[in-house]
Amino acid sequence: MWKPDRQSKKTLYEQIADHLEQRISYGEFPPGSLLPSERKLAEQLDVNRSTVILAFAELRSMGIIESRTGSGTRVSKSKWGATPKHTPNWRRYAEGGSFLPNLPFMRKIREALTQQPSLIDFASGELAADLAPVDEIAKLMSEHKYTSYLGYDNPQGYIPLRQDLVSFLARYRGIRTTESSILITSGSQQSLYLITQCLLSPGDAVAIEDPSYCYSLPMFQSAGLRLFRLPVDQHGVRPDDIRALYKKHRIKMVFLNPNYQNPTGTVLGAERRKQVLDVASELALPIVEDEPFSLTAYEGNPPPPLKSMDTVGSVLYIGSFSKIAASGLRIGWMVAPRSIVERLADARQQMDFGLSVIPQQVAAQFLKSSHFEPHLDRLRIQLQYKRDLIIEALRKELPDLVTFTAPEGGLHLWCKLVPEVHDGKLLDEAIRKGVVFVPGSVYGSDSGFVRFTYARATAEEIGLGISGFAEALRELIDERSCLD
Amino acid sequence: MWKPDRQSKKTLYEQIADHLEQRISYGEFPPGSLLPSERKLAEQLDVNRSTVILAFAELRSMGIIESRTGSGTRVSKSKWGATPKHTPNWRRYAEGGSFLPNLPFMRKIREALTQQPSLIDFASGELAADLAPVDEIAKLMSEHKYTSYLGYDNPQGYIPLRQDLVSFLARYRGIRTTESSILITSGSQQSLYLITQCLLSPGDAVAIEDPSYCYSLPMFQSAGLRLFRLPVDQHGVRPDDIRALYKKHRIKMVFLNPNYQNPTGTVLGAERRKQVLDVASELALPIVEDEPFSLTAYEGNPPPPLKSMDTVGSVLYIGSFSKIAASGLRIGWMVAPRSIVERLADARQQMDFGLSVIPQQVAAQFLKSSHFEPHLDRLRIQLQYKRDLIIEALRKELPDLVTFTAPEGGLHLWCKLVPEVHDGKLLDEAIRKGVVFVPGSVYGSDSGFVRFTYARATAEEIGLGISGFAEALRELIDERSCLD
Ligand SMILES: Cc1ncc(COP(=O)(O)O)c(C=O)c1O
Ligand SMILES: Cc1ncc(COP(=O)(O)O)c(C=O)c1O
Repeated sequence: MWKPDRQSKKTLYEQIADHLEQRISYGEFPPGSLLPSERKLAEQLDVNRSTVILAFAELRSMGIIESRTGSGTRVSKSKWGATPKHTPNWRRYAEGGSFLPNLPFMRKIREALTQQPSLIDFASGELAADLAPVDEIAKLMSEHKYTSYLGYDNPQGYIPLRQDLVSFLARYRGIRTTESSILITSGSQQSLYLITQCLLSPGDAVAIEDPSYCYSLPMFQSAGLRLFRLPVDQHGVRPDDIRALYKKHRIKMVFLNPNYQNPTGTVLGAERRKQVLDVASELALPIVEDEPFSLTAYEGNPPPPLKSMDTVGSVLYIGSFSKIAASGLRIGWMVAPRSIVERLADARQQMDFGLSVIPQQVAAQFLKSSHFEPHLDRLRIQLQYKRDLIIEALRKELPDLVTFTAPEGGLHLWCKLVPEVHDGKLLDEAIRKGVVFVPGSVYGSDSGFVRFTYARATAEEIGLGISGFAEALRELIDERSCLD
Repeated sequence: MWKPDRQSKKTLYEQIADHLEQRISYGEFPPGSLLPSERKLAEQLDVNRSTVILAFAELRSMGIIESRTGSGTRVSKSKWGATPKHTPNWRRYAEGGSFLPNLPFMRKIREALTQQPSLIDFASGELAADLAPVDEIAKLMSEHKYTSYLGYDNPQGYIPLRQDLVSFLARYRGIRTTESSILITSGSQQSLYLITQCLLSPGDAVAIEDPSYCYSLPMFQSAGLRLFRLPVDQHGVRPDDIRALYKKHRIKMVFLNPNYQNPTGTVLGAERRKQVLDVASELALPIVEDEPFSLTAYEGNPPPPLKSMDTVGSVLYIGSFSKIAASGLRIGWMVAPRSIVERLADARQQMDFGLSVIPQQVAAQFLKSSHFEPHLDRLRIQLQYKRDLIIEALRKELPDLVTFTAPEGGLHLWCKLVPEVHDGKLLDEAIRKGVVFVPGSVYGSDSGFVRFTYARATAEEIGLGISGFAEALRELIDERSCLD
């Protein structure tokens, strides 16, 4: 990111004006397009707003930009788009297409994190640098000779990785499968995308947990699916609800995250697992089992996946390295009947021509290395420790204002707020106090819930972050009582 | 891929029966699903068909599979899907969705290549192992310390790579841009996918070259676009045709591959480039400039891209490492106005959560390494050499039966066949002779054309492959004259 040079002889505002002129001339901001606001630019460039105002004035005097009250500052058409030349109406193209934009809360969180990297991050659903096996992977990469040919990969994914996953799945998840039933994807995310795009049609009804990670994905709506809710209680979804939704709406697929569910941390009960499979086979209904968190189980073994108990072939199983190793590898996998794997691999060719071979090689090496098992052990202990820290901090800071159930695995703590506060205001206030979290409504729940990811922040940050959050919450409550 | 063990005491057919039973019990072939044919299995397992027949008989006698004449062999429902349990109708799911399967010719070619890896490959549009910088990349990877945190990447792609691309594009393509106008994608393919999915809506009309790589992508039809043709002559498309299509069909976008076009190898003429940009700005029409081959220019510099001459902001520019370094890196880039880049990055988050960081780091290292420039020089010379070899072979083997123009860059030779033969029959016959190519109809042209990729085969294979092709072609001609 460019910043003005404070050592330069040129004034800051002149540097900014020059820089903007250059970017406009390069086409980053075509004629007629909106520039970032003065406030935003000032934040991005780390200067006072008045400096940006001066820079804009300079550009305006050269006829490069135009400001109209109320509609912001735009790149001048007469200067840059000399008639009769016309720039495509890019704004309209950007608004076209059937793909819905990400949720405003998610965009706000991302923006806040980009602009203030010092924020304490309870929002990003991923491991902290010290929990990821960065050194182990660096070591493996320096030892390995990457001399294999780097051509387009097999459409189902790198064969040695699929072979290693066969043993991995048998050993860790009790799933017996073959390499031809495995599709390697860019994280679980791409598995979900392929399923919604290629196996379902617009108008199809599907059932998802409520609350659920799936609600955070406009992807489901972009695919034109009709979403129906399966309420999650302490033991996960109720099998009878699936049957009821089938009767009423002919749902065509059920999406479940049975172990340490995102966001609630719930585990689907053992009895209910059997019943879910019974309902699925009774109705010939496919179940998508999304299982990224299982190997984080803090104590003992995680419950066996539905897929390992599925004698009928109802389950499409999805796993990922993101939450147990590194999300930046972008390695996930799906286990499915051959016809489905082949169909999805074929479609994926058209989307991106398959995954890069290198991260698949890295993942395969890590999986069969002597580092894998010790890494998992360490990860589990440290996640549990961080969970304890955040719970302790919440008990100390907000003893009467939040309630929650301590999760037995995963990365997230799901909190109910006792006072009623406005989701968006709480987030804004928390950001001002240096903390981000994800408002529960992102996951489809009513407001009054909060998801804290404790895996991303360092141990030191957890206490500080919860103090900041507590301050934000208290201020909102005070404000409200003033209004009462 | 599993193969029976010829040293084992168990007979081959028993091993195969056991193996199939296991795969069926794992869910790879759910109850009711079709097994591969006897012939196909025999090929895959490297055994006689009679061995597979025995294995099937064994499984049939155990009630595990059922064969009905004319409809192949299926996994038994009564055995595996004990009533009242029902497996989802996976076939129907696989046929659902709006995503069209890849073209039958492309699937046939891929299958042939998987089953007979010894085929001489004039079909895969990529570099041979000896043209790719495998050693250079292995060296860079062993030198580099991969110690950075492996979290979810920036949605627009790895920032240092985008910064390096800014200099790369200025130096090699005369394109001035900034890192915030660049989106890193999984090859050019994902750039094209994002554009068709997110900037266009079903029913929109677009113009593509005829013949064109785009016709080989059912992706355009999957997105519901109406495709209109811009015939390619010796100097590329005619600008007036764009205007005419706009008047008639209100096309909303034009897709061009101006340098060493796939499949024809044509270069868009200098005068026409100016006119294309004039038409685009006259009509406010976006041009997608897909430019994967430019840096392969055999002699001198390739023509400058439209993007470098675009003062209005009409062009979305796409580049890739696939054809100049390694397709298995899956690194491509788009240069576009900020609003478009941000929109596409946001949508991509929902599809795959962004690219793996590692190949982006590798690409950045390679780009700024001292290996890059010598690699390009060597690549150009060797491609030109292979082009000369294939032309020589064709002149020798089929002097009167094919016509073509020698391409000045790229990987492909586009041939017109003088005799009229059936596309599919020619491909089948060629495969029997040990060669694959891509029938021209895949690119939307009439039959009677063939695309030979000369970059993928070794120098030794080129002559042999063309002999095989010539034999196949001659046989088809003879067969036809027998019928006359
Ligand atoms: C339940 C669940 N599924 C899928 C994903 C996608 O993760 P990835 O694509 O990195 O595997 C997430 C990430 O937060 C998740 O929580
Ligand atoms: C014209 C053109 N565009 C795009 C692509 C896609 O290549 P990649 O995604 O590997 O960059 C190809 C590959 O053959 C091509 O020929």
